[in-house]
Amino acid sequence: MVTSVEVSPAPSTTILRPAKFTGKVALSSLPAESDPVASLPADIPLDTLKVIRPSVKETSSSSSEDDEADDLVGKEANGEKVTRNGDSDTLVLGKNFHDLCLTITEPDFDDDVTGEKDAYMAGVLARYRKKLVERTKFHLGYPYNLDFEYGALTQLQHFSINNLGDPFIESNYGVHSRQFEVGVLDWFARLWDIEKNEYWGYITNCGTEGNLHGILVGREVFPDGVLYASKDSHYSVFKAARIYRMDVVKVDTLLSGEIDCKDLKQKLSERADKPAILNVNIGTTVKGAVDDLDLVLETLSEAGFKEDRFYIHCDGALFGLMMPFVKKAPKVSFKKPIGSVSVSGHKFVGCPMPCGVQITRMEHISVLSKNVEYLASRDATIMGSRNGHAPIFLWYTLNRKGYQGFQKEVQRCLRNAHYLKECLRAAGFGVMLNELSSTVVFERPQEESFVLKWQLACQGKIAHAVVMPNVTVEKINKFVKELIESRQRCFSDGKVPCIVEEVGPENCACEEHRGIQHTDRNNDH
Amino acid sequence: MVTSVEVSPAPSTTILRPAKFTGKVALSSLPAESDPVASLPADIPLDTLKVIRPSVKETSSSSSEDDEADDLVGKEANGEKVTRNGDSDTLVLGKNFHDLCLTITEPDFDDDVTGEKDAYMAGVLARYRKKLVERTKFHLGYPYNLDFEYGALTQLQHFSINNLGDPFIESNYGVHSRQFEVGVLDWFARLWDIEKNEYWGYITNCGTEGNLHGILVGREVFPDGVLYASKDSHYSVFKAARIYRMDVVKVDTLLSGEIDCKDLKQKLSERADKPAILNVNIGTTVKGAVDDLDLVLETLSEAGFKEDRFYIHCDGALFGLMMPFVKKAPKVSFKKPIGSVSVSGHKFVGCPMPCGVQITRMEHISVLSKNVEYLASRDATIMGSRNGHAPIFLWYTLNRKGYQGFQKEVQRCLRNAHYLKECLRAAGFGVMLNELSSTVVFERPQEESFVLKWQLACQGKIAHAVVMPNVTVEKINKFVKELIESRQRCFSDGKVPCIVEEVGPENCACEEHRGIQHTDRNNDH
Repeated sequence: MVTSVEVSPAPSTTILRPAKFTGKVALSSLPAESDPVASLPADIPLDTLKVIRPSVKETSSSSSEDDEADDLVGKEANGEKVTRNGDSDTLVLGKNFHDLCLTITEPDFDDDVTGEKDAYMAGVLARYRKKLVERTKFHLGYPYNLDFEYGALTQLQHFSINNLGDPFIESNYGVHSRQFEVGVLDWFARLWDIEKNEYWGYITNCGTEGNLHGILVGREVFPDGVLYASKDSHYSVFKAARIYRMDVVKVDTLLSGEIDCKDLKQKLSERADKPAILNVNIGTTVKGAVDDLDLVLETLSEAGFKEDRFYIHCDGALFGLMMPFVKKAPKVSFKKPIGSVSVSGHKFVGCPMPCGVQITRMEHISVLSKNVEYLASRDATIMGSRNGHAPIFLWYTLNRKGYQGFQKEVQRCLRNAHYLKECLRAAGFGVMLNELSSTVVFERPQEESFVLKWQLACQGKIAHAVVMPNVTVEKINKFVKELIESRQRCFSDGKVPCIVEEVGPENCACEEHRGIQHTDRNNDH
Repeated sequence: MVTSVEVSPAPSTTILRPAKFTGKVALSSLPAESDPVASLPADIPLDTLKVIRPSVKETSSSSSEDDEADDLVGKEANGEKVTRNGDSDTLVLGKNFHDLCLTITEPDFDDDVTGEKDAYMAGVLARYRKKLVERTKFHLGYPYNLDFEYGALTQLQHFSINNLGDPFIESNYGVHSRQFEVGVLDWFARLWDIEKNEYWGYITNCGTEGNLHGILVGREVFPDGVLYASKDSHYSVFKAARIYRMDVVKVDTLLSGEIDCKDLKQKLSERADKPAILNVNIGTTVKGAVDDLDLVLETLSEAGFKEDRFYIHCDGALFGLMMPFVKKAPKVSFKKPIGSVSVSGHKFVGCPMPCGVQITRMEHISVLSKNVEYLASRDATIMGSRNGHAPIFLWYTLNRKGYQGFQKEVQRCLRNAHYLKECLRAAGFGVMLNELSSTVVFERPQEESFVLKWQLACQGKIAHAVVMPNVTVEKINKFVKELIESRQRCFSDGKVPCIVEEVGPENCACEEHRGIQHTDRNNDH
């Protein structure tokens, strides 16, 4: 652990050395008004954070690891090439897994005797496991916390646990985990300020199911409602509109990725005759921007929409669990007139399989549910059979970490994200980090092999890295070093691509905007 | 193992004794025209099946097990009561898991030192595991194969495996299992007669997602199409119609549960101006009835619907994997003009979590998919993030068992289902078993504790037991014995409820219809 970071406008430095953390980007403590987190201690002292400036030199110490990783990418690149047009906006879908798939073969008549089949499968699985270890090690692009330990739950892996139907109503199928599921839901209900007898919810299969559910509830409450969502919303929001045959209005965003409430107001006013169903992003997918819920509510009011004329779904896939622990963030709370909140379970919490938490108001569920006697249950979920293992994973982690544990992790992630941003900026990259976000946006690397190795999610000219609890300072250092090397191979003349349209002039590092960036950065310190 | 069963018209017998199997209900071998299964051997010789007639006496041998189970049910009945109106058609939804849930608590400051929290959780998990063992042991009502062994896959449980997006196109997220997923899809494509380059599919989260996907594809192909589904279709089919804002027409069923093609023809003719989207049940949920696909196609033709005016989704949740191994069953094949087939993975195959397989024609996918650059993939699935463990479980089982292994299991299940039916009939129960189905329908037990213990799915006056590979003759014997005892407690006068409307006069055992049943049964032998 190092203790501070110094941010200087110089591009890449040449030696790894401790640096001074100015404290200007200090993270906030918890909001006092939030019940479950009110009693938590303040921030971790900043001086517990040690930061090392990245360097293109002094790389020998980790070269063996590098080789291993390069080998891996090399192997993948041979067999699993993605045909893609570099950094342009279009994408050629060429990859077909038929060529690579593990074909299932009929067992030989004497397999039981020879053990050939078992040996073959053991070999496949061992190689696959090795690949997973490596792919997990080099991962920065998706907001998945890959750092979890569920050894205590291995004993449950051979049961067919299925929470089919409604979590609150017993089905006749006895091999379920509803008692864990409801425990998890209660924990989130408390986090988002809604009483036990006033909420309904369930553990979903993923963030998309949460959005599909929230928007469906909105549509059932307002069958002729128009869906409003910023253009930076997750693609599942627009998928929902198409599936549900709803009118959808795409709202502009600010450069940060936040919804542009001026545009929202105008578009609401143009359709004031119809109720509004709004998707509010608590962390957009690409830029990690948090829509200002309070401003959205104000905008609705200004456009003449009373509370009985709108429904708000909060897509909190990633940040829904982080924001409650950050003081300045717009608070997601059912004390405000929102209809539903969803969050992913495999993202900040970490879980071997995708899952999510969906919470809505009990009063909305009657419009969606329908008695289905076959299950001895009501039908208010989107899926029927539901994975009963996921709630146990979540229950286990929430119990172990508690609100306090999550607070610490959120603070560490935000700090490390800030560190990553400063490292990239210092190295002369165009880079943007929304305040209180852990998603660092930067120019898209030109080398496809680098993108694949670090599993970066890209959009147009930009890529992002999401700093999750499993992303350590060491990993960041390694990443930055390799990114610098990669760029040097592509831009030997030192030219930097312009990403001003994506991140704004103060964050762009191209020749034209570098001055603006410098000014801004100098202002920072 | 015993070798035969004798079926006599006498109601319950008093002594367990070997009986003679008449062979009238012999199971068929595989269809020769089915490619992947063509080379499989014929049926297992019937004389490998031993059958014991159930009895209400001679129960002492397993009484300790009974007590344990009764304790369990007693415990559940105390804390987890379902408020339900006996065997009537209405259902009061009273159960609320809030009272029973495992509340998540904040860790104490010294938990790391004392280990209190870990000890608490270990205790909860150990008790839960014991409950799962017992609930798994006494299970007959749901079509889940609970007999699987995935020890070799434990090594993968701590990876966050996510096949987000399209299975055939690599996403940037590297911790995936697409190579297993596509192997599984290829296996099913071969089973259902469609070439690798002509199909598209994915591993879903459950049977419902399969139906949601298949019907959505149908709607995208025919945006103004009307959905036709028999009233015995799974509830997710009608949920899909509501979610998708489609016109839906409920078609009558025969007593067996099969779609009534006369009614279908009339309803098709009345709406001949609009394309038809049909849900064909390859095994209904309650009665296990298989709609006659060939007859449905004939009906469409008679009603004037050419192939470019209809889309057929086959809901094969349970039987989609069983039917290919049964000679007389209507063959599900993409050589016929069908659009999609879905099957559950946690049902006949067996899997710790719900999952399913969805196969459709590649040509239909372009209408559904939409490029989503964030994923470097197209968006043709319903869910975004997808559980990457499920495909590995399926891949492992399919590899170990092969088509041949499934053939054997299907035959054993059908035989055991027949055995269960004969046992119940011999004991004087109204009972129905569709030819080539393993779902045995019988009068709903009056005792709620019995229904809960055996986790029976009930509808109106009937219940069913689904004979899966984990349902042995021993389990059947135990179940029948207890069912007889339960009925004796409820109907000490020997009166039998009439379920003629559900199963028909030849299967009803009430005073009025018993004669018809006897005649029929005598005809059988």
